[in-house]
Amino acid sequence: MMEPHRDPAMAAAPGASTRVVVLAGGVGGARLSHGVARLPGVELTVVVNTGDDLELHGLAISPDVDTVLYTLAGVANPETGWGLRDETWSAHGMLARYGAPTWFRLGDRDLATQLVRTRRFRDGATPTDVTGELAQALGVRARILPMSDRPVRTHVRTHGGWLEFQEWFVARGHADDVLEVRFDGVEDARPTERVLTSIAAADAILVAPSNPFVSIGTILALPGMVAALLAAAAPVVAVSPIVAGAALKGPADRMFETLGGESSALGVARHYAGAFPGLVDGLVIDGADRDQAAAIGQLGIRTLVTSAIMRDEDDRVRLAGEVLGFATELRRDEQRRNEG
Amino acid sequence: MMEPHRDPAMAAAPGASTRVVVLAGGVGGARLSHGVARLPGVELTVVVNTGDDLELHGLAISPDVDTVLYTLAGVANPETGWGLRDETWSAHGMLARYGAPTWFRLGDRDLATQLVRTRRFRDGATPTDVTGELAQALGVRARILPMSDRPVRTHVRTHGGWLEFQEWFVARGHADDVLEVRFDGVEDARPTERVLTSIAAADAILVAPSNPFVSIGTILALPGMVAALLAAAAPVVAVSPIVAGAALKGPADRMFETLGGESSALGVARHYAGAFPGLVDGLVIDGADRDQAAAIGQLGIRTLVTSAIMRDEDDRVRLAGEVLGFATELRRDEQRRNEG
Repeated sequence: MMEPHRDPAMAAAPGASTRVVVLAGGVGGARLSHGVARLPGVELTVVVNTGDDLELHGLAISPDVDTVLYTLAGVANPETGWGLRDETWSAHGMLARYGAPTWFRLGDRDLATQLVRTRRFRDGATPTDVTGELAQALGVRARILPMSDRPVRTHVRTHGGWLEFQEWFVARGHADDVLEVRFDGVEDARPTERVLTSIAAADAILVAPSNPFVSIGTILALPGMVAALLAAAAPVVAVSPIVAGAALKGPADRMFETLGGESSALGVARHYAGAFPGLVDGLVIDGADRDQAAAIGQLGIRTLVTSAIMRDEDDRVRLAGEVLGFATELRRDEQRRNEG
Repeated sequence: MMEPHRDPAMAAAPGASTRVVVLAGGVGGARLSHGVARLPGVELTVVVNTGDDLELHGLAISPDVDTVLYTLAGVANPETGWGLRDETWSAHGMLARYGAPTWFRLGDRDLATQLVRTRRFRDGATPTDVTGELAQALGVRARILPMSDRPVRTHVRTHGGWLEFQEWFVARGHADDVLEVRFDGVEDARPTERVLTSIAAADAILVAPSNPFVSIGTILALPGMVAALLAAAAPVVAVSPIVAGAALKGPADRMFETLGGESSALGVARHYAGAFPGLVDGLVIDGADRDQAAAIGQLGIRTLVTSAIMRDEDDRVRLAGEVLGFATELRRDEQRRNEG
């Protein structure tokens, strides 16, 4: 258990940039990534879940990639965390009039992103290509990398049967208990070369406070992904998406109950340690869960206790700096151990 | 030369509906069609030019079909004549930010139409199918029929070379002189069965005050179209798009100068009589061109002199009623001749 660094800049080695990889789902991943991006001396790569992607109105939609993209570009809707600020909904209203499906709301500005993505896919561009182009157009300096250029589609089993992720999450408002998760296409998918290279070259690898089952879980399900993370020199530090027993956003807490385990910081640690032994070196937990640090330590996972909630942009930068300082500390300790 | 009927209802035979086919381009065709649609006792079919269609942002766009659709649905932008009223332009701004082409402005609500059309095409639906579905969704009772279900693409030759229609018309604001017109794909295209059936069953066939070269000209270039019109029992009545030497909208007047002929009501009559002998039975001309009626008569084309300009919706209904009354008169005269 470590106390946080108070100065975010401490994380960066003087003169050289710190290469940080964040594994991210949607809103939580985007917010932590945004905090990291604003730290001085950081070269950020965000590896984003694409298991939530969908096709609608003939458009290829990649919700988590766009949430990271919009957040890093500073154009995200600050209320929802997803979608664009200053959005209008004219096309949505007209689509409804035409009887087109409207359960997944696409704003007018957001539609432009999907149009460009879909068109570039038809030209033969990869998700990695298109994401890079969109990011460049929006002035994003960080590298946003879809976890894979091959399609993976997350499905969840409910009491009513299997549902596509977005049908469960958006159309039915994630009201159904999740009894099982499966990632269609994952056997044939691989992390991209750029993802693997970024992980191998990283100074710190952060696991965002995204859903461990259907955001981070999807990324880690890619063949070769866990091996690449285990082989990386950088420490892997996760931020707990559970604070005081509840998910910061979304249904992660209820999924612990139905998929097994407990909805707590310790539960997160047990989940990662059980499913991926040796993967997570450190876990950032909230002060509210301080009493769980010892039990987490017994799993071989070190803890940083801090305020793990990101209420505003300052929170993002503060938390990112602390997480990165923690990772740097873990790395130095590891180097000392190897030298000793 | 005939004087107009003052009572639009006169056009309809009592008890039975009058089947009217309008050959239409964009705004002028849509406005006349709208007037016809509002007449009592009329069953309207609009056969619409699709030579101006284009692909943009991966979307299949059919500008003239949409102008007719929106106008008949009462949702057209009253200022421009094309596009939708209460439109927003959020997607357009975002597309510009992504560096996508922005010379053809698509409003947000309009985008919904293009999304639905494009998606239905991918499902295997025809332009006729999709147009019918869109019209039904917008509550349009008239039948809007794309002239063909096969692609035709109008091109114009300028001093700078051949241009696609919309590149010339929208991107370059039809500033370039047109030296030649060609309809790519027209040899392999055909009027649809529904178009041919509607023409054969019509009581009156109206040629809208649309561009004779690149709107009506495209429709008439379809193999079998002129033969179908000549074989139809109904009289063919055209409304002059030229009033007092000038085009009511668009570049038709300048095209007369560069393509041959003269920009006048008589020039319109000569154009149709020369290119398609016997096709046009009557021409509706404006009072300003009254002195050309005799010369038009010498071409074997009867004239109706009235106010041929549609400034508002009342004008549309008035003109439509007069044109239809004129057509009915021509038909009765023809029947009398055949009986005599």
